[in-house]
Amino acid sequence: MSLAAASADTGDTAWLLAATALVLLMTPGLALFYGGMVRTKSVLNMLMMSFVSIALVTVVWLAAGFSLTFGEDAGGGLIGGLDHIGMSGIGPDSVQGTVPTLLFATFQLTFAIITAALVSGAVADRAKFGAWLVFVPVWALLVYVPVAHWVWGPGGWILEKLGALDFAGGLPVEIVSGASGLALCLVLGPRMGFKKDSMRPHNLPMVMLGAGLLWFGWFGFNAGSALGANGLAAAAFLNTLAAGCTGLLGWLFVEQKRDGHPTTLGAASGAVAGLVAITPSCGSVSLLGALVVGLTAGAVCSYAVSWKFKLNYDDSLDVVGVHLVGGVIGTLLIGVFAVDSMTGGAEGLLYGGGLAQLGKQVVAVVVVAVYAFAVTYGIGKLIDVTLGFRASEEQEQTGLDLTVHAETAYDHGVLGHGAPVSSSVVPHAQKVTPQA
Amino acid sequence: MSLAAASADTGDTAWLLAATALVLLMTPGLALFYGGMVRTKSVLNMLMMSFVSIALVTVVWLAAGFSLTFGEDAGGGLIGGLDHIGMSGIGPDSVQGTVPTLLFATFQLTFAIITAALVSGAVADRAKFGAWLVFVPVWALLVYVPVAHWVWGPGGWILEKLGALDFAGGLPVEIVSGASGLALCLVLGPRMGFKKDSMRPHNLPMVMLGAGLLWFGWFGFNAGSALGANGLAAAAFLNTLAAGCTGLLGWLFVEQKRDGHPTTLGAASGAVAGLVAITPSCGSVSLLGALVVGLTAGAVCSYAVSWKFKLNYDDSLDVVGVHLVGGVIGTLLIGVFAVDSMTGGAEGLLYGGGLAQLGKQVVAVVVVAVYAFAVTYGIGKLIDVTLGFRASEEQEQTGLDLTVHAETAYDHGVLGHGAPVSSSVVPHAQKVTPQA
Amino acid sequence: MSLAAASADTGDTAWLLAATALVLLMTPGLALFYGGMVRTKSVLNMLMMSFVSIALVTVVWLAAGFSLTFGEDAGGGLIGGLDHIGMSGIGPDSVQGTVPTLLFATFQLTFAIITAALVSGAVADRAKFGAWLVFVPVWALLVYVPVAHWVWGPGGWILEKLGALDFAGGLPVEIVSGASGLALCLVLGPRMGFKKDSMRPHNLPMVMLGAGLLWFGWFGFNAGSALGANGLAAAAFLNTLAAGCTGLLGWLFVEQKRDGHPTTLGAASGAVAGLVAITPSCGSVSLLGALVVGLTAGAVCSYAVSWKFKLNYDDSLDVVGVHLVGGVIGTLLIGVFAVDSMTGGAEGLLYGGGLAQLGKQVVAVVVVAVYAFAVTYGIGKLIDVTLGFRASEEQEQTGLDLTVHAETAYDHGVLGHGAPVSSSVVPHAQKVTPQA
Repeated sequence: MSLAAASADTGDTAWLLAATALVLLMTPGLALFYGGMVRTKSVLNMLMMSFVSIALVTVVWLAAGFSLTFGEDAGGGLIGGLDHIGMSGIGPDSVQGTVPTLLFATFQLTFAIITAALVSGAVADRAKFGAWLVFVPVWALLVYVPVAHWVWGPGGWILEKLGALDFAGGLPVEIVSGASGLALCLVLGPRMGFKKDSMRPHNLPMVMLGAGLLWFGWFGFNAGSALGANGLAAAAFLNTLAAGCTGLLGWLFVEQKRDGHPTTLGAASGAVAGLVAITPSCGSVSLLGALVVGLTAGAVCSYAVSWKFKLNYDDSLDVVGVHLVGGVIGTLLIGVFAVDSMTGGAEGLLYGGGLAQLGKQVVAVVVVAVYAFAVTYGIGKLIDVTLGFRASEEQEQTGLDLTVHAETAYDHGVLGHGAPVSSSVVPHAQKVTPQA
Repeated sequence: MSLAAASADTGDTAWLLAATALVLLMTPGLALFYGGMVRTKSVLNMLMMSFVSIALVTVVWLAAGFSLTFGEDAGGGLIGGLDHIGMSGIGPDSVQGTVPTLLFATFQLTFAIITAALVSGAVADRAKFGAWLVFVPVWALLVYVPVAHWVWGPGGWILEKLGALDFAGGLPVEIVSGASGLALCLVLGPRMGFKKDSMRPHNLPMVMLGAGLLWFGWFGFNAGSALGANGLAAAAFLNTLAAGCTGLLGWLFVEQKRDGHPTTLGAASGAVAGLVAITPSCGSVSLLGALVVGLTAGAVCSYAVSWKFKLNYDDSLDVVGVHLVGGVIGTLLIGVFAVDSMTGGAEGLLYGGGLAQLGKQVVAVVVVAVYAFAVTYGIGKLIDVTLGFRASEEQEQTGLDLTVHAETAYDHGVLGHGAPVSSSVVPHAQKVTPQA
Repeated sequence: MSLAAASADTGDTAWLLAATALVLLMTPGLALFYGGMVRTKSVLNMLMMSFVSIALVTVVWLAAGFSLTFGEDAGGGLIGGLDHIGMSGIGPDSVQGTVPTLLFATFQLTFAIITAALVSGAVADRAKFGAWLVFVPVWALLVYVPVAHWVWGPGGWILEKLGALDFAGGLPVEIVSGASGLALCLVLGPRMGFKKDSMRPHNLPMVMLGAGLLWFGWFGFNAGSALGANGLAAAAFLNTLAAGCTGLLGWLFVEQKRDGHPTTLGAASGAVAGLVAITPSCGSVSLLGALVVGLTAGAVCSYAVSWKFKLNYDDSLDVVGVHLVGGVIGTLLIGVFAVDSMTGGAEGLLYGGGLAQLGKQVVAVVVVAVYAFAVTYGIGKLIDVTLGFRASEEQEQTGLDLTVHAETAYDHGVLGHGAPVSSSVVPHAQKVTPQA
């Protein structure tokens, strides 16, 4: 990482400040997206898994993650160094490219946060909360950080040596979250009633709200990855919109043909699938490419979400079906649709670049998916055999909200249609706390 | 459109990137605003009409809409040319004014999107979903695009020839959506139970959330229309805040006097009415003007929303009463409150400009309203006699959510107060899909 | 205030435009945060208190508040002058620092708005709506405006004379809202059933949504206070994220130890407590300082919210326990953690500055807290003895939504699990209004 005494550009900095805020909103957005999809009895637990990810990953990133990701390469493009442990050596005046280094570090932190939160969707309704609190920091350091260094770190082997492309995180965010989700749901096993009980989303407007906030934040995620306010950011922005749109249309089209009904859950999932797939590719493909990337992801993921029923892994909220599959699609299609005017060199199959770029993308995808799956599986198993990772049967049956958090999501008692809840459950605002 | 080899300003670009994201959030915001106002049985359908508008309008805009709106005038200021069909000739390096052309095109696209989504409020609860999917792209090309060219296109007759003013879309967005909504609700006819049954909003906090997101996004809409980060953007921003505030106060004041109760629905509607009215005028009127524009719109629209009961058109969510009426008020009052320090020339009646500007505003309002109404009515009728535009009686009775989308918005079954729903309704996340 | 003919920087302006929009979103966010915490019967009233604060404070600010806060000091650093009454003398071309003066004025306005809205949490469920409409403008002029002048106004005694530090509003926003809330809840007295009935939040996902929007907006609040897109903004941004995170962790840690359950309400409250405390200090403390500030606030406030049960003041939604206590913590800790690289001079105890800065912070905290409490108590009492400030017993029992606003928050009647509501309650969208 260069800490040259350059001076920041106010326009580039302005956009990255806004973009960073946008990406941070994605995690509460994801919390609602996921929270709306689960049953009423574990909404709050789902929200909590995202919110604590914000806190835990931030602390880990500031302590060591940033340095290990963006510090000078410690050798072989595998991991960054320890120069900036505890953010040492970086002050308000440090500049990275045309923006303050502290801002660059914060922007990158937001990516680590949402990746951790994404994983939680695979283990909805049944993870022990304490185990999640242990998992997140360990996983962030052992899985997210190395992969992010490979891709974006100075000297990282994937971008700088191999020459694969990933503009905004198909590898460290989408594929990593999907492969990690798969590993973790295998460790925990399926929910009680998987494939038997109806587990319908308890609140679809909440899902749509979450999808809307995610999409909004995604513009910061993708167009912010240009690290400046320029034409590349504009192109990435438009590609992001375009792919979300065709993703939505692709999923609804398949649903209509297959099931006879276009659903809102399908619309939200399709948009997200398109957004996932355009994440790696938004800064390298043509507009036509973006439209195709989104459409492909929407259509394919609408099938991929049902693989779990055949293969018997309970990826509860489809992290595998949407993020792993969508991430692979988007990362590979760079090899087809990359254009010189975006990449400044590399070209895909369609634009005369032959199979070279595609081959590099395949290597990157496979290595990252295998690494994330294997290490996450190891971490998960280790936690499972020591602390236990699965909630008790009784907790799962009754719901994690009441048993773990001593709360229920809704209480409409006063107007007569709320569920009666044990009067011992009184959140702090109304509780007399003798210890205080 | 000039594609001069100028270079973009990073600050102007930074603001327009953020503003474009803000406007895009408005459509999910509108979806919630509308979704909260309808009955529980058709919330999801309402949300879907907005979300598919995002997708459909985007595709149409990239294919042809942008070129027809902002391409070189094809003659008479009536429509743009075909030079940029499929966005051809525009790359990451193209610059329009001081921002990337791709960004300018995306910003303008967001206006087309929300205008389409606004129309859906007039036909809530009873439109055939398939017909809406056909309507939106046709309508976007035949109604939105020409009017937007008249107003903002190079050589467009309304701004450049007639000399009427419209800073951020009183004509192409507000009046077009309102007049189109009126046409479409006449084509479809009133909901079953119109004027007889209580059709209370099912979720007012959702309405307020939607209003909050709309207002937030509106700053991007209006201040972004300065196409740069400058004093004009700042003035438009403050005018937007001011008019939303007096709109809210005006509506509540009338409600209190008339009905004895200030309602949250009135507060939300009043703020929106003020925002609608300041949309055309935010870049040309004084701060005093903005306060009066908002207050007038809030007060007048609080009456206008009841016209439908006398005149028997079921404009279900008051697109006519708020957007058409508010848009007319705001567009006309430019003729009264325009100040030279904002417009760089034109002045309104109050500031010594006489009736000249007001006259131009009247012509623009009448032509646009008549055009949008007539063409939309034609499109609507054509769809109605071919595909049918109205849902079946049974669908309307049971609710579009269950019959069209095979979903219900809420399912609190686990905690005991949900409605029982046919077990055949199992959204994808929980469904075993044999075809996959 | 200098109105020098400098020219604005587009990058700085771009960030402040975005930041201003972000802060404006905080008030709807707060409305949801508060709205989710109250019982179903007064959600709408809670939302309304925030929304009307936006409107009322805006009008007051434009009329006189801005001039009295940021006009030339009228003497002694106590209040600004009348030069800019009605925003006179300020046009689109006026520049303040490197941004348009109109934008600076709007950004500052948003702080006044949310401070007023914050106070409403202390009197949830029982304030007369008409009295609130009178209270807000009077309070804004007599309490917020003077304190804001002391802190940020030209020649203000706290920053410029005393030399205390407050980057983004620990004094005028957090301590003022907390002390005012305390005064007002003493004037009104406790809710019926205080300490007896369970008053559980009716909708915790709504609380989390509100917290998410608040946090998002807070980046505009704090990093926007740098009034430019620079390294200081970046540092303030990261400090804001860090303190919110440790606030969340601190609160949950105490809850787990004390009560055996980490709650979502605790997570949301802890994050807010951390954000409150970092507000004054984000622009002056080190990153380590930010982490400690947040952690301290989260842990201490988790106890402070129960003081009301011992001392018998019904600060219903914990404005005192979170904003007053958190604001005091953050303002004082500047005296410990201020670093020269952020402040350009002043240093805290930990960094060799001795007790000097801490002493100044103590003086500022005491004077502001006493002033805000005393004047608010006076205003509250005056309104109470004239108009009455407390809703009637019957209104409180039945709920303010139905009795004051003639609405209920939710109506799920169609799907069978809604509460029956008097058919006379028909909001405007569905009402035939004879007067219109």
